[in-house]
Amino acid sequence: MVDLITKKRDGQTLTQEEIEWMIDNYVSDAIPDYQMSAMLMAIYFNGMEDTEQAQLAFAMLHSGDVLNLDQIPGIKVDKHSTGGVGDKISIPLAPLVASLGVPIPMISGRGLGHTGGTLDKLESIPGFNVNLSEKEFVDLVQEHGEAIVSASGDMAPADRRIYALRDVTGTVESIPLIASSIMSKKIASGTNALVFDVKVGNGAFMKTEEDATKLAEALVSIGKQANVNSVALLTDMSQPLGITIGNSLEIAESIAILRNQGPKDVRDLTIKLAAQMLVLGQKAPSLEVAIGLAEDALRDGRALKKFKQLIQDQGGDPAVVDNPKLLPQAQYKIAVKAPRAGYVVGIDTNALGVAVMQLGGGRAKKDAALDLAVGLVLHKKLGTPVSEGDTLAMIHANQEDVSAIAAQVQQAYTIDSNVPVVPPLIHKVIR
Amino acid sequence: MVDLITKKRDGQTLTQEEIEWMIDNYVSDAIPDYQMSAMLMAIYFNGMEDTEQAQLAFAMLHSGDVLNLDQIPGIKVDKHSTGGVGDKISIPLAPLVASLGVPIPMISGRGLGHTGGTLDKLESIPGFNVNLSEKEFVDLVQEHGEAIVSASGDMAPADRRIYALRDVTGTVESIPLIASSIMSKKIASGTNALVFDVKVGNGAFMKTEEDATKLAEALVSIGKQANVNSVALLTDMSQPLGITIGNSLEIAESIAILRNQGPKDVRDLTIKLAAQMLVLGQKAPSLEVAIGLAEDALRDGRALKKFKQLIQDQGGDPAVVDNPKLLPQAQYKIAVKAPRAGYVVGIDTNALGVAVMQLGGGRAKKDAALDLAVGLVLHKKLGTPVSEGDTLAMIHANQEDVSAIAAQVQQAYTIDSNVPVVPPLIHKVIR
Repeated sequence: MVDLITKKRDGQTLTQEEIEWMIDNYVSDAIPDYQMSAMLMAIYFNGMEDTEQAQLAFAMLHSGDVLNLDQIPGIKVDKHSTGGVGDKISIPLAPLVASLGVPIPMISGRGLGHTGGTLDKLESIPGFNVNLSEKEFVDLVQEHGEAIVSASGDMAPADRRIYALRDVTGTVESIPLIASSIMSKKIASGTNALVFDVKVGNGAFMKTEEDATKLAEALVSIGKQANVNSVALLTDMSQPLGITIGNSLEIAESIAILRNQGPKDVRDLTIKLAAQMLVLGQKAPSLEVAIGLAEDALRDGRALKKFKQLIQDQGGDPAVVDNPKLLPQAQYKIAVKAPRAGYVVGIDTNALGVAVMQLGGGRAKKDAALDLAVGLVLHKKLGTPVSEGDTLAMIHANQEDVSAIAAQVQQAYTIDSNVPVVPPLIHKVIR
Repeated sequence: MVDLITKKRDGQTLTQEEIEWMIDNYVSDAIPDYQMSAMLMAIYFNGMEDTEQAQLAFAMLHSGDVLNLDQIPGIKVDKHSTGGVGDKISIPLAPLVASLGVPIPMISGRGLGHTGGTLDKLESIPGFNVNLSEKEFVDLVQEHGEAIVSASGDMAPADRRIYALRDVTGTVESIPLIASSIMSKKIASGTNALVFDVKVGNGAFMKTEEDATKLAEALVSIGKQANVNSVALLTDMSQPLGITIGNSLEIAESIAILRNQGPKDVRDLTIKLAAQMLVLGQKAPSLEVAIGLAEDALRDGRALKKFKQLIQDQGGDPAVVDNPKLLPQAQYKIAVKAPRAGYVVGIDTNALGVAVMQLGGGRAKKDAALDLAVGLVLHKKLGTPVSEGDTLAMIHANQEDVSAIAAQVQQAYTIDSNVPVVPPLIHKVIR
């Protein structure tokens, strides 16, 4: 292992045999944490070649169970987002694409820090169960074309151990390590194709377009080497997506989208990602045709119906779709006012995510309990004109005194007299 | 600790408090090895500022005992070599400088890999004891102005632990880590001034003048910050020093130097280092005067007498000085012949060190037993003309068949028809 660490430290390329040997021996405790952490730091500095990061993903993948979805006919397509604030896209997206005939075996995650997680959001639907057995999961995707579940504990255990080590050794922010970690789990889920939503901006893990592009390229490259057809969209996270942040609030917003309503950015991104998935799933010959199909399914209620079915299939109460008031509701609603007139020229997206976490809607640490009712409803987004005293956002809280959080939300808005240029929703597409 | 790792990873400077906190908590097992190894790799890549590496040395120094030599009058001066092949300089140097009135509290090391160690060499003198108690050490330096001992187990325990971790995590070759490791032990020995012999060339750890210069600067800088007046000489290790490699062979060569005989390079370097130590010890107003004093002490036998005293003081048999045949002698002497005529244009110094190790004169692993009698006597050095069949070197062995080692020694010599440029013995002086 010292030789491998030195090799990587000196900028050389590890071979497939070396990477497999390393992962096997790490999982079997023959390689101690202190050698793996030195290796991870060397990878942080020297990076990995396209082949190396794919081999790392495959070695971690093969450390555990790999789902076989071959019994389900058709091209299975999943979507993965690198995480943002107000990113509820998976929730309208899965039923929309499933309603058009593409099987969606979606394995999602939970929120941590300033970002939310699809599983937490779904759990704000009374009764909704994300912890299905492998058989239940496969059966649902086969019968109704959709299921959204948490990863099983037996998938990619090497990744789980390495991720925990990265978390305490300052080696989280490495693109080959991030990409191979994501891909080891995604490939283990047995999907045939993947659409990546790589977030870029002040609310994303990748703050710059350069880093986000590198991550997107790494993900697509590993996908290709795994014969998982992959496309990545770089999408904007310089402000939250839509107008809600918080678990049940985002479910309500997702229902609006499926009713052919809701904020334009969420709708646009849902349709654009759906179109990519429809093309990968060979249900549309082109993105233009696919966009038309998706718009139809939102307009005629097929997508909404498919969401009701998803809820019912996973033990939830489908009545929330017609009556979102059945979702957990916060006790207090407090307006945050604009301190001056002008235009919203900047939103500290990360700070808004942290504010929701502090309200109880997110986790500072893994396994912390959540208050699913709380969150923020944004009345003003980037580029909007505001008058002094206008409501910038409504805080939904279960505590009476939110003055400190309200001050943070107010400070997260930058108001200036010049009209700003609002970044495009989709920065680029990488395939 | 994650914050400190991230800080160093991102190229920032650690504060004194942070470094002290880190070392204290590592020694008390509050910081696990896997975090320290990630930190060491981050230091490998991003280096350390002058102040940081000194603070690291001091923090490691204060993790254990620090000798106090204040009771000994005068300016105590020690010498440290970064390690080479045939480097026996400490042995004639210590008595030479002590004979001129500078107290020499010398703490030396053992050989590892291709390099020899002063303690091993001294132990080829029958009875010589390098494991003195602190009191015995201090008393000898006070009474007779010299002692050469091994470091006590209580000095800089943090350095010992970190060194062991570096050894298995590919983080040995980092100049701030090397420099702070050396200095933590050297300052712990209580010396007032230090002369460094930083080796450069194919037999040294620093292969390039650039790296050797950086290490020399780091050592001198830490010395200054510790109020230990320091000078570093960059000296040539593109061939072995002198004509012998091997423990008792090098003692015999050292005795020759003290008899005002012996190879010119060993004599020159001994005198040059002695002159630096005499100036630091304020026994000479200039290097020129100091060189004259050293030459006198070699010529008139004072240095030799002081060496006899050192041997007697540390339990050895001083009769070896007059009769080097009392030193362990090898059973077999095998000549290695030149395969062609020409000039010696290159010597693979590392390979000759490894050859002696394979004869049993050095250690592949710590704590391995040594054969003190074996080694090499070089008949040809860089720049020397050779005829085909000339003896390049004599192998002194206690095994009859040394054909494999002889082939290695032969291959370590490069013979060419062009007269080479031989590098100077002293490349530069850094203060």
